[in-house]
Parts: sequence; structure tokens; C-alpha cells
Amino acid sequence: MPAALRLCFFGDSFINGTGDPTGLGWVGRACASQRTASPDLTVYNLGIRGDKTAQIHRRWQVEAQARLDGIAPAQRRLIFSFGANDSAQNIPPQHTLAEAECLLRPAQAYARTLFIGPAPIADDAAADGRITSLCEDFTALAARLDLPYLPIHGFLRQHRSWMDEAGAGDGVHPGAGGYAALADFICGWAPWQGLFD
Amino acid sequence: MPAALRLCFFGDSFINGTGDPTGLGWVGRACASQRTASPDLTVYNLGIRGDKTAQIHRRWQVEAQARLDGIAPAQRRLIFSFGANDSAQNIPPQHTLAEAECLLRPAQAYARTLFIGPAPIADDAAADGRITSLCEDFTALAARLDLPYLPIHGFLRQHRSWMDEAGAGDGVHPGAGGYAALADFICGWAPWQGLFD
Repeated sequence: MPAALRLCFFGDSFINGTGDPTGLGWVGRACASQRTASPDLTVYNLGIRGDKTAQIHRRWQVEAQARLDGIAPAQRRLIFSFGANDSAQNIPPQHTLAEAECLLRPAQAYARTLFIGPAPIADDAAADGRITSLCEDFTALAARLDLPYLPIHGFLRQHRSWMDEAGAGDGVHPGAGGYAALADFICGWAPWQGLFD
Repeated sequence: MPAALRLCFFGDSFINGTGDPTGLGWVGRACASQRTASPDLTVYNLGIRGDKTAQIHRRWQVEAQARLDGIAPAQRRLIFSFGANDSAQNIPPQHTLAEAECLLRPAQAYARTLFIGPAPIADDAAADGRITSLCEDFTALAARLDLPYLPIHGFLRQHRSWMDEAGAGDGVHPGAGGYAALADFICGWAPWQGLFD
């Protein structure tokens, strides 16, 4: 019998699934494909549109505790993805990195944790260039924290569904095809699969 | 152009969609069917398994503010559904009602608000009897607050998919068919449709 896992996803609009007409986003799709093997899987999607790293840093702990404090530590999971709004709003990267480290260290102590990089911003080349640089900083931070980290920016920049749907939509958020591609990419990542062991 | 509405759903496992293999629950299904007419619809599902009224009372305001404070009041929506866990755990109904009133009054002042009654507990006749009684108390409370309220208990008790799936599952939560039936029922309720005007 697989464990009755409870997953909290923290991040911005790309965690929320903004723009997906099905409402599933990548989180809903990736978790649905896991439910056959893990039927008692509980998903708390705590993505908020527009959130920057500092905002997630301020709220994640109390929102996670409301959902996970009564749950055995072995059944808790945390997944974080942020940074796109920091880059869009030109937050100095050293601030983003400091907030990220202050957030991720206690998260790792509280539950098994994954870190997923920021998505591209299709309609703003300058912001998107800053995301490329932030992804490298996040790779170094995650290595230092010994935290599983998946960069997704390069994959999505090359992915036709994601970029075409973002262009046809609000310039930032894809539709069902883009989110499905991202879900498949994340489902193929060994640390994601390891979450359910 | 329809308004860019942001909806926060607060409640227990029946808001979370626990047991639905698709992960959509009634909230995901009801909102997906609205997205053609209202493409820029943002859904924040803040249901927590096991939450009683007092727990939702303690957390709803800070979680709603993190998601809605920067949003024009005309674009904010709140939907609450709770009470099943109070009845399951034999909380005195006067406590539940006091918590509910203290929660719902400021909610109505903060955003347009709907209140949806508790679902049945299929495998516990005593708890389910208490829910029947609580539904009547909620009807009176909502009338006093002039708050749109939809009782769902009677409909779901009679609904074969809901009861059969709950019985075949953990005794409480239905699968995709039960949640789809509940979504249809709520989508046919005039105050739900009025949320999107």
C-alpha cells in the first residue's frame, strides 16, 4: 500500500495553472498521472499569480503548516517554483537568491522538498534574459543546499506549444498544450518520480 | 470583456476534491465549464482535508488576503463550504454556528460570497444525521445574513454515483462521477451563475 502522501505546491501563476482552459495546469496533470499508483494522494496547489520569491518566503510556512502539521513527516512533500516575477519586476538577483535560501533551508528541514526553475516570459526579452541568468544562480544555490532542482526555462523556450500558446494568449501563460508538455517533462525527472517512493 | 475574476474556495476535503482521480473535484469541473465565457478566471482551491469550521475561521482571512488584497473588490469572489467534519467529530452545533457566523460576516464585507452546505458522510449514519440537522441551522443562518446558500446534502444522499463511489472508496469521498454530479448541481444554481456577471 503506497503512503497517503500530501503535496503542497508553492509558487506563482505557473504553479496555479493560469491560462489552462482545463484548470489543471502542469500540477494537476502531473499529479493525475500519478494517482493510479498512489490513489490516496492529496494535492494542495498554493500558487498565487504575481508572487515573487519574497512573498512566497513570507507565506509558505503558515500555509504548509495548516495543511501538513498533523501529517507524519514521512508523508509530507513540498514543491517550490518561483523567480519569473522577480525577473519581470527587475528585483536584484542577490535579493531573490537571499530570499530563496532563507525559504528553502527550513523547507528542507520540514519535509522532502523539490525545487523547479522559473518558466520563460515569452513577450519580454529583457525579463527573459534575466530569468536565464537567475536559472544559473538557482542551479548553484540548489547544489549548495543539496536540493533536487530542475531547470525548465531552456526546455520551454524551445517548445513550440508553450511559446505559441503564450503568444496567442496573454504573452506569458500557455494553454493546455504547453502545460501538458511541462507536466511530461517534470514527470520524467527522477526526483519527481522519487517523491512517491 | 468579462471581468478578470479571482475566486477563492475555502472548505474541507470536498472542496479539495479528495478521491477524484482526475484531481478536478467539483470546483475544477464547475470552473472549467465557466472558462469559455470567462477566460481570465483564476481559481484558488483552499480546501484542506479534515478542516472543521473553527480551522477555516482561523485561516481564511490571511489566505484570502494573500491572493486578493491587490485585486479590485469587484473582481474578488469567496466560496465557502464546511460542516461535515464538525458533524463527524461531534462538535456541538452551537459552536459550529458561532464560528460560521464570525467567519461569514467579515467575508461578506470583503467580497461577494457564496455558502454551500456540507456533503453527506456515507459510512457514518450518526454523523450524517447530525449533518442533516446542521444543514437546517445553516439555512437559517444564511437567511439571517442574507447570504446565498445552497444545501447539497439531500441531493447527494439521493445520488447514486456519489453514494456508490463513496462506498467503493474510503466511505466518504466519491470519485469522478459524484464530483461531476455535484458540479452540475452547483452550476445550475442561480447565485453561482451570478458570480460571473
